[in-house]
Amino acid sequence: MPRRPPALSVEPPRATIADVARAAGVHPSTVSRALNPDTRAMVTDAVAVRVAEAAEQLGWRPSMLAAGLRTRRSRTIGILVPDLVNPVFPPIVHAAEVRLAEAGYATLVANTDNDPDREAMMIERMAGHLVDGLMLASAAKGSQAVDLCRRRRIPTVLINRRLPGAEFSAVTNDDRHGMALAVEHLVALGHRRIAHLAGPSGISTAVDRRSGFRSAVRAAGLDPDLMPIMAADAYTIEAGRCAMERLLELGGFTAVAVANDLLALGAYDALGAAGLRVGPDVSVTGFNDMPFVDRISPPLTTIRIQHAEMGGRAAGLLLAAITEPATSRTDILLQPKLVVRHSTAAPEA
Amino acid sequence: MPRRPPALSVEPPRATIADVARAAGVHPSTVSRALNPDTRAMVTDAVAVRVAEAAEQLGWRPSMLAAGLRTRRSRTIGILVPDLVNPVFPPIVHAAEVRLAEAGYATLVANTDNDPDREAMMIERMAGHLVDGLMLASAAKGSQAVDLCRRRRIPTVLINRRLPGAEFSAVTNDDRHGMALAVEHLVALGHRRIAHLAGPSGISTAVDRRSGFRSAVRAAGLDPDLMPIMAADAYTIEAGRCAMERLLELGGFTAVAVANDLLALGAYDALGAAGLRVGPDVSVTGFNDMPFVDRISPPLTTIRIQHAEMGGRAAGLLLAAITEPATSRTDILLQPKLVVRHSTAAPEA
Repeated sequence: MPRRPPALSVEPPRATIADVARAAGVHPSTVSRALNPDTRAMVTDAVAVRVAEAAEQLGWRPSMLAAGLRTRRSRTIGILVPDLVNPVFPPIVHAAEVRLAEAGYATLVANTDNDPDREAMMIERMAGHLVDGLMLASAAKGSQAVDLCRRRRIPTVLINRRLPGAEFSAVTNDDRHGMALAVEHLVALGHRRIAHLAGPSGISTAVDRRSGFRSAVRAAGLDPDLMPIMAADAYTIEAGRCAMERLLELGGFTAVAVANDLLALGAYDALGAAGLRVGPDVSVTGFNDMPFVDRISPPLTTIRIQHAEMGGRAAGLLLAAITEPATSRTDILLQPKLVVRHSTAAPEA
Repeated sequence: MPRRPPALSVEPPRATIADVARAAGVHPSTVSRALNPDTRAMVTDAVAVRVAEAAEQLGWRPSMLAAGLRTRRSRTIGILVPDLVNPVFPPIVHAAEVRLAEAGYATLVANTDNDPDREAMMIERMAGHLVDGLMLASAAKGSQAVDLCRRRRIPTVLINRRLPGAEFSAVTNDDRHGMALAVEHLVALGHRRIAHLAGPSGISTAVDRRSGFRSAVRAAGLDPDLMPIMAADAYTIEAGRCAMERLLELGGFTAVAVANDLLALGAYDALGAAGLRVGPDVSVTGFNDMPFVDRISPPLTTIRIQHAEMGGRAAGLLLAAITEPATSRTDILLQPKLVVRHSTAAPEA
């Protein structure tokens, strides 16, 4: 059977071990020995210097890839986020980066854009690059992520989101408790008819916050079935605006507990377009305390999740999973807190 | 000379080609042929299925790494950003991702945290993973990035920042013109004493915006030497607050043209702490029109750079550099525009 020609003939010329060997006047195996830190002592200093100079002159890339094949370690961690433009993720990723850098690991971030196929592709790509571990902030229903990571035996930790049945450690926020804090705050202000602008179904944060909302309403002596609930179809400003418009058509509430800060920004837009003031006319609570919501108009009352703690603890669990593969699964549930600003007020009498 | 034992004995067990061959009952070279899309046709379907099943059962990682060695292509692009928490970068990165994905490339993002050593380490790491190209949004004076990319022969494009003497294509914003738009707007409102809160020296955007400020002041018939200028030592809210405090000590201005939106947020904080209202008391212009500055209080008058265009055009140049290495350097200068909101007003009489 005839062999196909190389698929890609346009690639830039890159030096091979053989090129370096020719330039340095040594055998290719000597080049390999000289360029591999573990075997460098097997060649003389003069040869090591000659090979290193030839390699640099030719632009030969160092042995990370070959070293990866040899040690199967890249000292690189991948982090998958579902939406790079959502400001809630950078502080979490940054905390993880800092912790991983202390342990000598570099961090590469990939954006899945909430697309399960793209998530699977990025995991395959990262596995192919032999990342030593993955942190998934992108897990959602329909995701093949857990299955892929298990099959490829990549140490993996889930951040911010849970996946039922996943055997990986996870660091998440106590979303049910967070939503209870929001509802209790609104009830204490005097609200009795509270709507819930929920997140997209299939994402654990949305499911837990919605169920936390209903429990908290019931605990306050109110009937959850009388409270209007509308789910947004994504965690975006635009989806929040649409869901808020539909809630306004239903009516019958003086406050809305929103499942996420981006959705709350969309709720602000819909309320403003309807001629309603956030705070005096309709109280709004967010969730996450993402950067900049303290500076918007009006500043958003929200539930602060522990971004830095989440990233740092997840990094610690992943490092443990890498160095001690037998470590059993650990779930860390972080406690959020209520941050009161100016988007909530007593209902008008 | 005795060989050292393997350096890392704690790694999780990962299957090799030999393990797969043993499990499938075939020769290792058959495994390689069966698992490589370019040579799969050289084995029977039955063998291909048997090998694929054995590989999956054993958790063998697919041939990306070996394929990288073979074709020296990973179809992966690295993007280096100086600060992941600065919201100006995600829209640029996202536009690049979309364009690169259309061409079949995955994108990995690394954060340098404005640290030249960390930037160099990330480039080495990405080069070691055989990324096909790099986009540097992190270039600054003292950076070894250009040198490293040239030595490793990695196709590279600069985004948002220039580096004098770099031979790589760049997509930047016309920062001098942008600052002229800000100064002209303030002069048209009636301001005659305008301060400049400059960015950190050593970053091209800061240098160009500062020089653009002085030129525009002169063009308006004012003496640039009479305008107070204070440089922040980083593009952060905190650095902006400190620099604004020092400008307030100098006094003698009714408006401040700020080099970047994060710095402008810090200026808001310092002005508020001094009991001054942004807009009525002191006019403030930002630069970038990063996400959310339209929602802060008061909404920021700023210079909008073309985020999506910047990311998309840079991706296009990088793809050209990868597929046509002989393509000569191209510089694209994008035109910004003024967006007037409520942080600027006529000075009090």
